[in-house]
Amino acid sequence: MIVPTDKRMIPVIQEKIDNLSKPKGSLGRLESLAVQMALIQQTPHPQLLHPCHILFGGDHGIEREGVTCTPREVTAQQMMNYAQGGGAVGMFCRQHGFALRVVDVGVDYDFDLNRYPRIIDRKIAHGTRDFLYEAAMSADEWELALHVGAEQVDACADEGANVVCLGEMGAGNTSPSSILMHLLLGIPLEQCVGAGSGLDAPGVRRKLEVLGDALRNYKVKHVLPTEFDSGTFAYFAGYEMAAAVGAMLRAAERRMVVLVDGFIMTACMLMASRMDSAVLDYAVFGHCGDEGGHRIMLDAMGAKPLLHLGMRLGEGTGALCAWPIVQSAVNMLNDMDSFDDAHITKYF
Amino acid sequence: MIVPTDKRMIPVIQEKIDNLSKPKGSLGRLESLAVQMALIQQTPHPQLLHPCHILFGGDHGIEREGVTCTPREVTAQQMMNYAQGGGAVGMFCRQHGFALRVVDVGVDYDFDLNRYPRIIDRKIAHGTRDFLYEAAMSADEWELALHVGAEQVDACADEGANVVCLGEMGAGNTSPSSILMHLLLGIPLEQCVGAGSGLDAPGVRRKLEVLGDALRNYKVKHVLPTEFDSGTFAYFAGYEMAAAVGAMLRAAERRMVVLVDGFIMTACMLMASRMDSAVLDYAVFGHCGDEGGHRIMLDAMGAKPLLHLGMRLGEGTGALCAWPIVQSAVNMLNDMDSFDDAHITKYF
Repeated sequence: MIVPTDKRMIPVIQEKIDNLSKPKGSLGRLESLAVQMALIQQTPHPQLLHPCHILFGGDHGIEREGVTCTPREVTAQQMMNYAQGGGAVGMFCRQHGFALRVVDVGVDYDFDLNRYPRIIDRKIAHGTRDFLYEAAMSADEWELALHVGAEQVDACADEGANVVCLGEMGAGNTSPSSILMHLLLGIPLEQCVGAGSGLDAPGVRRKLEVLGDALRNYKVKHVLPTEFDSGTFAYFAGYEMAAAVGAMLRAAERRMVVLVDGFIMTACMLMASRMDSAVLDYAVFGHCGDEGGHRIMLDAMGAKPLLHLGMRLGEGTGALCAWPIVQSAVNMLNDMDSFDDAHITKYF
Repeated sequence: MIVPTDKRMIPVIQEKIDNLSKPKGSLGRLESLAVQMALIQQTPHPQLLHPCHILFGGDHGIEREGVTCTPREVTAQQMMNYAQGGGAVGMFCRQHGFALRVVDVGVDYDFDLNRYPRIIDRKIAHGTRDFLYEAAMSADEWELALHVGAEQVDACADEGANVVCLGEMGAGNTSPSSILMHLLLGIPLEQCVGAGSGLDAPGVRRKLEVLGDALRNYKVKHVLPTEFDSGTFAYFAGYEMAAAVGAMLRAAERRMVVLVDGFIMTACMLMASRMDSAVLDYAVFGHCGDEGGHRIMLDAMGAKPLLHLGMRLGEGTGALCAWPIVQSAVNMLNDMDSFDDAHITKYF
């Protein structure tokens, strides 16, 4: 059960911000972000503590249909790389002081856990089934993956974190994200499909055809509900995506800040918000990337991402790059003088 | 004499970036920024050292004409505030590890330097003259202010800095910036004029009228040169702006990274680029703000700012918020594994 933030506090926080020694509104997006942080923690002096980044990995049956230029083996290879501090995610976690948890929810590879002790083994299966023909996972597996995500957030919270950032690795996972975006927002499928990790134009056309076929096959067997439920999500999503949804919901339940990354994590936040819309009160959208449809999805959700840097890597990297902006917003609330304190004429 | 960066290095740097363990191009703007940093330092392993923020302060004769809602006294009050670690600039300098130099180039106030020892006294005059009627400063004063800026950069470099960020405080200084933007880029004056620190619509109209009158008075006395020279700059600019121009030119001469802030600092970079276009090789535009005309000016200069956070505070705050992105770009070059190192299939 997620408690929506108490918006009655807004005038108090806004008055505090308006009395800081700067022209009213002149810190722009930092000011609205500061209000959100204060609401999440229900105090005009929020503190961001022990931020944790959780990266969930999983493979996808749909990858077999030629919808991505990332070979399946790369999911496992990258997970081992992350577990040794490699990859862009490791670099950004070090830069910004995030603890990193690398969680195998459904990678199609048996890791040598003695060699890679930092991979947290919560494998549900060796990749999802191929949603071109059948449900990617069962309802039970969906629930299990939600639980894995929630449990990881609990572990972060137990270590003192009140901020969690979520990322993913899963060859082919823009495909389920595109379909879910289409189904949940009613946006034409062709606007939801992009180049992923680097398809060329014929590749994108092929991906669109495959996803269109998958949707038709799905609709033969299912009446499309107006309220999408976890059955729909389980049909298309990956284990790493389900775990991220579970993590988002639990983090909001625990009143933690949730940093949301690119296309796939935004699709996960979209699913989470259909399960409990109050989760959005806790979400900070870090980055609007280059993947076709990401901006459209963010706009449709009313989300205002902090950065626009043309990134499309996943792993949570866009959200991590936005982190110092969140810190700046909180620093503004805690460290900046008022006009009175600084002996400055208030001029508006 | 500024040496343009040697673009022949680009293929080498680009190849290094393309072999890092990520889809090609997937770190977006970070990648082009990394190339620029490598070019500035002429090495594929650039290091960002001892970043320094220089904030120049000065008052403006034009402020007497009701073109701003910031009273003149605020310039001095804020300078004293900054010198004690206050203001948004102090907060962001602490957050990002910048040394801060607060330099009085032309503030209309006699500071008690015993009480405020951190104010660096390089006062040329107690504010500029009113460019509605006459040149804001003399040619000699312009040269002197350029020298002040250069000298401050030298001081930073002597302390080991190879990055300098520039900011300003000066009630009324969007007005000269708007006029210079109009003159140097040929953009209609009304597109160059905005709300500054918070004018309402009638206030903006009044500002536009005053600046239009100033331009007409100027043109009565001066033939507009096609190549604008320092005489034109001296007619309109403030001491703090001239010092920033001098700082930008010297920093580029010393092959330092120059972080450029909002509307006023962009106008200063525009002036600097007319004195030596190679300065742009060293410029990183941190933030596109809310001031009317800033985006237009950046576009006309071909500048691609890193952030769009709706800030309009000045002081250098937008550029400081962009700093972690520059660090991330350099970290990518220095810390990220290649596909080979990480044992990952190269998949494009």
